[in-house]
Amino acid sequence: MENTKTVQHEPLRKFVKAVYLHAGACEENAELITDTLVQSDLWGHQSHGVLRMSWYYRRIKNKVMFPNEKYSVVRDSGSIVCLDGNAGMGQAITKAAMQEAIARAKKYGVAVVTVRNSNHFGTVMYYTRMAAAAGCVAFMTSNGGPAMPPWGGIKKMVGTNPWSIAAPGGKYPPLVLDIANTGVARGKIAVAKQRGEAIPEGWALTIDGKPTTNAEEAFKGIILPMAQHKGSGIGIMVDVLSGVLSGSGFLTGVNSPFMYDKKSNCGHCITIMNVEAFMPFEEYSQRAEQFIGEIKDGPKAYGVDEIFYPGEIEIHRDKINRKEGISLPIEVIKDMEDVGKECGIPFNM
Amino acid sequence: MENTKTVQHEPLRKFVKAVYLHAGACEENAELITDTLVQSDLWGHQSHGVLRMSWYYRRIKNKVMFPNEKYSVVRDSGSIVCLDGNAGMGQAITKAAMQEAIARAKKYGVAVVTVRNSNHFGTVMYYTRMAAAAGCVAFMTSNGGPAMPPWGGIKKMVGTNPWSIAAPGGKYPPLVLDIANTGVARGKIAVAKQRGEAIPEGWALTIDGKPTTNAEEAFKGIILPMAQHKGSGIGIMVDVLSGVLSGSGFLTGVNSPFMYDKKSNCGHCITIMNVEAFMPFEEYSQRAEQFIGEIKDGPKAYGVDEIFYPGEIEIHRDKINRKEGISLPIEVIKDMEDVGKECGIPFNM
Repeated sequence: MENTKTVQHEPLRKFVKAVYLHAGACEENAELITDTLVQSDLWGHQSHGVLRMSWYYRRIKNKVMFPNEKYSVVRDSGSIVCLDGNAGMGQAITKAAMQEAIARAKKYGVAVVTVRNSNHFGTVMYYTRMAAAAGCVAFMTSNGGPAMPPWGGIKKMVGTNPWSIAAPGGKYPPLVLDIANTGVARGKIAVAKQRGEAIPEGWALTIDGKPTTNAEEAFKGIILPMAQHKGSGIGIMVDVLSGVLSGSGFLTGVNSPFMYDKKSNCGHCITIMNVEAFMPFEEYSQRAEQFIGEIKDGPKAYGVDEIFYPGEIEIHRDKINRKEGISLPIEVIKDMEDVGKECGIPFNM
Repeated sequence: MENTKTVQHEPLRKFVKAVYLHAGACEENAELITDTLVQSDLWGHQSHGVLRMSWYYRRIKNKVMFPNEKYSVVRDSGSIVCLDGNAGMGQAITKAAMQEAIARAKKYGVAVVTVRNSNHFGTVMYYTRMAAAAGCVAFMTSNGGPAMPPWGGIKKMVGTNPWSIAAPGGKYPPLVLDIANTGVARGKIAVAKQRGEAIPEGWALTIDGKPTTNAEEAFKGIILPMAQHKGSGIGIMVDVLSGVLSGSGFLTGVNSPFMYDKKSNCGHCITIMNVEAFMPFEEYSQRAEQFIGEIKDGPKAYGVDEIFYPGEIEIHRDKINRKEGISLPIEVIKDMEDVGKECGIPFNM
């Protein structure tokens, strides 16, 4: 039985945009939220692709996310800007915040824009790539709803709390890191459980907080952070920047995007540096090209065809998926069809 | 047989300082380099403690590190300052860079100071704690000599590339993350090898780049980054900030501190934000206290007595070690005695 279906990104865009227009988003915001979702699928990050279309749709319908709400400015001292998203669309607020941060960095060399009371915005790299394209280096963080306990604890308090660093790559596509701090995806434990296999140490704890290699106990239990205490520590510090310093919710005060009936309260922190403030852009570009060249030309591990630097593989996948279409799980298609029926918008792909 | 010896931090300081004075460091720099080493041991980070005394000593003797060299200013636009360390003492350059970054952040809200042609400076948290104590949030990175391959490669190119985020904690000690991006310490693989035990998957590759659980092959082979490709990606982006953007060496252009006869060429990138530029400090402090309180009051995993937030355990260890002394491996004592003999300074502890 076929478990996936391949769809082309253009009709997919039309459908998703129609859904958000129907839900009340203005033309510009419907276009933006659609692009963040479909672009994630094109990059191969299906966890942040149209899988989430219904999540955002239901949040709008439940009036915990207001698709056309404008942000307000809490503080503005030139190189520091603090925004309040007023529970508007995360994508719209964050794009505006990033554009502002880039403009300020061009003026002051470095700038920080924080956002409070925002909403889930998709992948962090959607925004940090904007900075790299504008000749800037970006360091951006966001908090999210509780996904893992702090190291030593058993209560979920710390979000996946994604963060990204991006920088121009000269003649190459930009260098872009975008990661969450949780360890293994819960889906991998589910697969081991179905197969009756043991899982490696360090993946999870039992519900009581004991280390386990039993997939069934782990599935009911607690997923551990990446790299043990290190991932926990990174997640906590990302929350300090995105939640505590921004004036937004933090720890259990933030709600995940799949909590359809609760305001998110999530926050972000965007730091942008203008490369030209450090050295002539041409000089930086030559250095970045030398850096990338050295990484790519290195000897490869067994079975590896090509060494990719951070952010490069997304560009490869984007080219392939634009041409060959996006392969989506049947459950995701079904979920979109259901929303389409609700809105009276046929899903014909 | 006793493998460790406990020494008190005060006589240890006197000895270490005397060695660096003998090597030609001025009073102030000898005091500083000594404090960074002994403080690391007091925090329980012995990998960055007096274990490294002889490394720095030999680098000075070999004239690849100049203990009293002054840095020069390459660029200064107010909130962006680019320094050249001129192969001086890493500790002295970095402390000055951090002080400058804090002063600029107090004036402009946010500031970035980069350093090129620096030297190993000890732990990153020695400096980011200065920022937190001054009411600032710090994000600081450094590159180092090749320690691991980029993901998919087998040639060591990327350093451990440590980085730190620090923030004030209100009435509590500051929140301080300080991590390297390599996975397991080589010492752990050595222990498994001695015991004839297998190592977990994901720790290392054979010299040819094949995954292995054989400790002997792994010891001869390649240590993998923390959290697989994520640790590799973080290490690479830290190098972009510390090496490419700073104008310093990067990848294989940087030499490790135990390469006694080669200039380091390492670089750093320090971003400082003044909390007061975001919200009144009192308001931030209350938020940080609530944040820390929620983490510490959470339910604990099996066998855990206390949940520590990042940077807290060092403060506990410091109190204990100041009182009870620092337990040092005999090889470290022996190494210090040898240097002492070379300098005519008796090691009597």
